[in-house]
Amino acid sequence: MSQELDESSPNTWEELVDTAQQQDPIALAEKIESLSPSDQAFAFAHMTDEQTEQVLGTLSPDDAADLIAGLPEAQAAHAIATLEADAAAAIVRELTSDEQADLIGDLSPEDAEAILGELPSDAANDVRNLTRYADDVAGGLMVSELFKFPVTATIRDVVDQLAVDSERLGDRNIRYGYVIDEGGRLVGVLPMQQLLFVKRSTPIVDVMIGNPLSVPVTMDLFELMDVFDRHRFLGVPVVDAEGLLRGVVHREAVEHAVTLASESDYLKSQGIVGGEELRNMPLWLRARRRLSWLSINIFLNLGAASVIAMYQDTLQAVIALAVFLPIISDMSGCSGNQAVAVSMRELAMGLVRPNELFRVWSKEVTVGLVNGAALGLLIGIVATIFDGNPFLGLVVGAALFLNTVLAVSIGGLVPLLLKRLGFDPAVASGPLLTTITDMCGFFLVLGFASVTLNRLVS
Amino acid sequence: MSQELDESSPNTWEELVDTAQQQDPIALAEKIESLSPSDQAFAFAHMTDEQTEQVLGTLSPDDAADLIAGLPEAQAAHAIATLEADAAAAIVRELTSDEQADLIGDLSPEDAEAILGELPSDAANDVRNLTRYADDVAGGLMVSELFKFPVTATIRDVVDQLAVDSERLGDRNIRYGYVIDEGGRLVGVLPMQQLLFVKRSTPIVDVMIGNPLSVPVTMDLFELMDVFDRHRFLGVPVVDAEGLLRGVVHREAVEHAVTLASESDYLKSQGIVGGEELRNMPLWLRARRRLSWLSINIFLNLGAASVIAMYQDTLQAVIALAVFLPIISDMSGCSGNQAVAVSMRELAMGLVRPNELFRVWSKEVTVGLVNGAALGLLIGIVATIFDGNPFLGLVVGAALFLNTVLAVSIGGLVPLLLKRLGFDPAVASGPLLTTITDMCGFFLVLGFASVTLNRLVS
Repeated sequence: MSQELDESSPNTWEELVDTAQQQDPIALAEKIESLSPSDQAFAFAHMTDEQTEQVLGTLSPDDAADLIAGLPEAQAAHAIATLEADAAAAIVRELTSDEQADLIGDLSPEDAEAILGELPSDAANDVRNLTRYADDVAGGLMVSELFKFPVTATIRDVVDQLAVDSERLGDRNIRYGYVIDEGGRLVGVLPMQQLLFVKRSTPIVDVMIGNPLSVPVTMDLFELMDVFDRHRFLGVPVVDAEGLLRGVVHREAVEHAVTLASESDYLKSQGIVGGEELRNMPLWLRARRRLSWLSINIFLNLGAASVIAMYQDTLQAVIALAVFLPIISDMSGCSGNQAVAVSMRELAMGLVRPNELFRVWSKEVTVGLVNGAALGLLIGIVATIFDGNPFLGLVVGAALFLNTVLAVSIGGLVPLLLKRLGFDPAVASGPLLTTITDMCGFFLVLGFASVTLNRLVS
Repeated sequence: MSQELDESSPNTWEELVDTAQQQDPIALAEKIESLSPSDQAFAFAHMTDEQTEQVLGTLSPDDAADLIAGLPEAQAAHAIATLEADAAAAIVRELTSDEQADLIGDLSPEDAEAILGELPSDAANDVRNLTRYADDVAGGLMVSELFKFPVTATIRDVVDQLAVDSERLGDRNIRYGYVIDEGGRLVGVLPMQQLLFVKRSTPIVDVMIGNPLSVPVTMDLFELMDVFDRHRFLGVPVVDAEGLLRGVVHREAVEHAVTLASESDYLKSQGIVGGEELRNMPLWLRARRRLSWLSINIFLNLGAASVIAMYQDTLQAVIALAVFLPIISDMSGCSGNQAVAVSMRELAMGLVRPNELFRVWSKEVTVGLVNGAALGLLIGIVATIFDGNPFLGLVVGAALFLNTVLAVSIGGLVPLLLKRLGFDPAVASGPLLTTITDMCGFFLVLGFASVTLNRLVS
């Protein structure tokens, strides 16, 4: 429905910008409110930084915060960063604690500190406390707003509190209440559903589940996935090193973090590193980020090509080899990347551990032998027909066969090795793989050729 | 915690296999139960098909179903497929409707039909009804188990029903009850939280939200994301074309499907197509799937290399060019893939529409000019030093400059064009991009070289 709407009026963002220019915050808020979140994101993806600043600056901080909370993370951070620190802080103040922490965490350290400096020091400290945690540990995924009750309360107290808060909470998930002792330590969990079946005068200690499962603020995403896999809970309380209740991490937040991690792995594998790129970000930022990755690659490429330089005489004698060098390089890269992808997925799913090098290698080498034989045979036949010389076919085919076996072996192992060494396998596996396979491929083709040179030139 | 445990005893799967061989279903179930879901997945990732069959076959169908439900989708389907159809059907019967549909949908059509043939015809039809829907529409994502009440019921009826069912439901999410008329059409939603605040004799029509939001069984993932972005609901009822209530799609299921889509895009972009590969799948299946992708690539590569073949004389005259051809090819591929990745992400987030070709091109071409200039300059200097001839540097540098501009332009546009034409951009973008950029890169280098040949060989 909204899809069709946009096809017919693709320039919603221009309407928003016009309304902002007329300094009409109420009409602007209404226009934005009438769009779905993805249409809002679409509109902001098409604005320049100046237009974004104008639209956000025209809205009331409250309306701007509603908007910001619905945009994709990278886009929200980019939009907030277009504003002056005081205007940004006014909007940030209207967000919930977890939204604040996510947004501030996505900003550059300078922008983040500038905005925090404009917040009341209490609020700024709360955000600093939440952003202290990495995005992918329980502390970074939890919300600090939750339903807490003292251990001395009765069911009536809880129901009264719920009735008061139910307006404010709206559709928020309040499946559990948390019971704390006078020191703030978690002592029980109260499934809200139970409230229906007990007398209101019952003390909550009689109904709560004592010794509840909780997770430390430092628990990582992988372990959290495990906790939610093992239990059907929709939320798990998060405690700090002293056992104090700090927040709740919801199943939904964990699932969302898994999605983000997978999306980020895809981007990194394609050479988009240093954060998600949106096409309305400034040119210099987009070009610089991409170039920092490309410039590493070009040096790796030069290293691999130096192998060809060593064999120029061979190549000069059998120029047909030059036709096949890029094929060997590209095909080995393709085979190796398939193995990288399988290792990355098996690591992500916990199906392989980084120390299982031999197992992975033995599984890859067999695939490499089969596929290398098929590809080597094919390219060998093509080379023989192309040059009319079966020895060229033999050289090229044997090189692709061996290099395929090598490529899948290296491709399978590199993510495990990088993980063990503490590097990010999503970023580094591709370039490392292709550099090694290029070098070896060129060595194999040109090495074989120089050994059989008198056969090739005859 | 479990992490450390496994490091010290990495061969849990051998213990499971041993216990299965001793035909001790109870000890085996206990051993499996003691593992976390990710340790279970790890163990099964290390078993051969025969071992998997033995372990699953030893367990009671009920225990086996618990295990299967916790494994990653691809692994669960592969494990079930190791069994004979009747043994598999006994396990499938113990799963919930949505689990059955997911599992059956992941099997090969032959395996699926063989298992369905062993189920009672009612159950088989239910599954067929659910698998009718694609994985990424509301009908495929919904669960058919839900809390339905006739429109004539009172709150007391609802609470009594809840009390009866609360044991069976355990920690399942029952935030909403659904109110249907005598024809089975959805007429209202009952927020369970409301039950706390009203008299038991109240008719549910007085409390329910009438005219509730519902989605059609055919609504796709992208639109569902929008619905859940727009509203804070944890679940939305799903109705068929006649308005009959068919199930509920939960926020969690939508988030999970988004994760799967993103993981699948990553795999496809790396050449793992036709389903997720696990290393304990049979060799022939793994090799065949990978090879079907590689064989398309090798023909595309041969096409690109034919450009080199046309210019063999030029290459023979200036053999140094052969050193730089693979660099131009690889670097253009890298630049183009960055643009592909940004387009893929912007499409996934709804920030760009497939018809915005000019906008994407204009955003890419500027990045291409900047990065192409930087890379072209660098490679030009290297080539000049390498050969002592500034004309070689000029040819190579200019070629990389122009080809980078071309690569980012094509890389940015290809996903949009493929999407418009109804192809899967995740699968086809990469090979299409690299073939075109290889061809153009070789043309540019060798074309420039043949024009300036007398300068290059002097």
